[in-house]
Amino acid sequence: MPETVADLSESELLARFVPRLSAGRQTLHGPGDDAAVVAVPSGSIVVTSDVLVEDRHFRRDWSTGVDVGWRAAAQNLADVAAMGARPTSIVVALVMPRDLAVAWVVELAEGLAAACAPHDVGIVGGDLSSGREISVAVAAFGELDGAAPVLRSGARPGDRVALAGTLGRSAAGLTALTAGGEVVVEGAEVAVATYRRPEPPLLAGPEAARAGATAMLDVSDGLLRDAGRIASASGVAIDLDPRLLAPDVEALAELAEELGADAASWVLTGGEDHGLLATFPAGHPLPPSFRRIGVVGAGCGVTVDGVAPDLVGWDHFGG
Amino acid sequence: MPETVADLSESELLARFVPRLSAGRQTLHGPGDDAAVVAVPSGSIVVTSDVLVEDRHFRRDWSTGVDVGWRAAAQNLADVAAMGARPTSIVVALVMPRDLAVAWVVELAEGLAAACAPHDVGIVGGDLSSGREISVAVAAFGELDGAAPVLRSGARPGDRVALAGTLGRSAAGLTALTAGGEVVVEGAEVAVATYRRPEPPLLAGPEAARAGATAMLDVSDGLLRDAGRIASASGVAIDLDPRLLAPDVEALAELAEELGADAASWVLTGGEDHGLLATFPAGHPLPPSFRRIGVVGAGCGVTVDGVAPDLVGWDHFGG
Repeated sequence: MPETVADLSESELLARFVPRLSAGRQTLHGPGDDAAVVAVPSGSIVVTSDVLVEDRHFRRDWSTGVDVGWRAAAQNLADVAAMGARPTSIVVALVMPRDLAVAWVVELAEGLAAACAPHDVGIVGGDLSSGREISVAVAAFGELDGAAPVLRSGARPGDRVALAGTLGRSAAGLTALTAGGEVVVEGAEVAVATYRRPEPPLLAGPEAARAGATAMLDVSDGLLRDAGRIASASGVAIDLDPRLLAPDVEALAELAEELGADAASWVLTGGEDHGLLATFPAGHPLPPSFRRIGVVGAGCGVTVDGVAPDLVGWDHFGG
Repeated sequence: MPETVADLSESELLARFVPRLSAGRQTLHGPGDDAAVVAVPSGSIVVTSDVLVEDRHFRRDWSTGVDVGWRAAAQNLADVAAMGARPTSIVVALVMPRDLAVAWVVELAEGLAAACAPHDVGIVGGDLSSGREISVAVAAFGELDGAAPVLRSGARPGDRVALAGTLGRSAAGLTALTAGGEVVVEGAEVAVATYRRPEPPLLAGPEAARAGATAMLDVSDGLLRDAGRIASASGVAIDLDPRLLAPDVEALAELAEELGADAASWVLTGGEDHGLLATFPAGHPLPPSFRRIGVVGAGCGVTVDGVAPDLVGWDHFGG
């Protein structure tokens, strides 16, 4: 039996894939961070790409075409912002079955525009092709406006860990949709809206860069996992403070109870709100979009109040 | 019955889609040409995106992973060059079924790199996702190095029509594969190689821009159709000279006879060699990569020796 994709984790597959790629002389930061940086004479652009695939990343009975277009754009713009850059433009490659309603495709365009236009992000090109399933591949670009890119690798012991945006709402929305199907569970409206149309705090990215952030990424796979990426890339330990995350948990507690779910799990492991997680040197005020949620220490890995994540339960957040 | 994608042509679908997209202030040239141009302080980047989908654009029994990676990159780099730009980098969003062999994915990376590295093009990021079928969405970027982008709309009556690269070979290769399956028809090696790994004349793009090309695109859908795009965008007529295309037809004549095909059809309607078709003002020497194949006149549409394309047959090229 030949080895198949199913045999490997994503990181194992990437470890096979990425070393075979070429790096041009103008590549300042290639694969491995939220976005890549390519030199331009007396300037630089930030470039990233993410794809949404039907039935893997979205379901058409849970999300409209507008929702899917919005998400496809927003998750890419978040990656640009997570480098400390200001997104300027995207391109879109759309694959779709031939029996897809034109109205859905039109909605998708509207959703892309709705996520982009308020941020002066141009949708500057793309490609349409038929295929067996819908996929929406977006590449996004942004500018650093003279700032250095904020990578994942710069966190230092003593730095504060801070967050811009929300945690756990998208995961809560997905749980509500799973429980209720098309009928949105009462009280889940905000969570479902965040799942359908996340609003990454895009301005917080450049704000963090100007404030001297030492590391940053967007929380797309959950706080614990993404904090672990900063810890690993920076060679440090991150300890999260459950008291500072308690408001996030509290905000979802009622819905969690109704759904028989765990609000703390949503907050710690739910991705796709696309908030920005960053580290800042101690002794300076945090930029206004950010709030402190933990601290960087020597060592490795992520803990919550000093405890390994798989041992963290709700009661850590209750008091 | 709701209207579906199958009810519309690509251009009709684009006419519904594109007007709904947003244009940022930094978008100098958005959708509608081979690539888009986005301003960068004291510079500009060229951005484009194209996707290859399994069983629509390639078959795994006819193309290796290396071939598919090569084509995915090359067709995007050709779009960048067709603006008069020098490609600098690409990002790749790959969707693949979970039972796909890892070796194939690794080959794909090698093919991407093989097409990019010789041109100092960096592969700077991307995304991998599972899905029901393979699709490879590439976004490519390039720099104009101070030149103005060469659009499709600048051709003027009296300009010469010129081509860099080959015509009809990829179409001939596809015909040979269709006829022979995996066994390559004798004498079809060069054509099949062009189908599998087209070599767009990338350096000819900036060369044309420096030489004052008035319009340019890459021939991806066939000479007649793509010449028609320049004619339409520029509001001019284009007349192709069959004597100047005779060598291209002649080079494929033997293979065409063997396969019961029409070499002139390959040359006039076969795409995906990704040669560059450009117009240049009369009275100046053409840049070295280009050869004359026709002339721009007043009016509209494309003719071959003054005759409408659907009336053009082999005998126009024989003598």
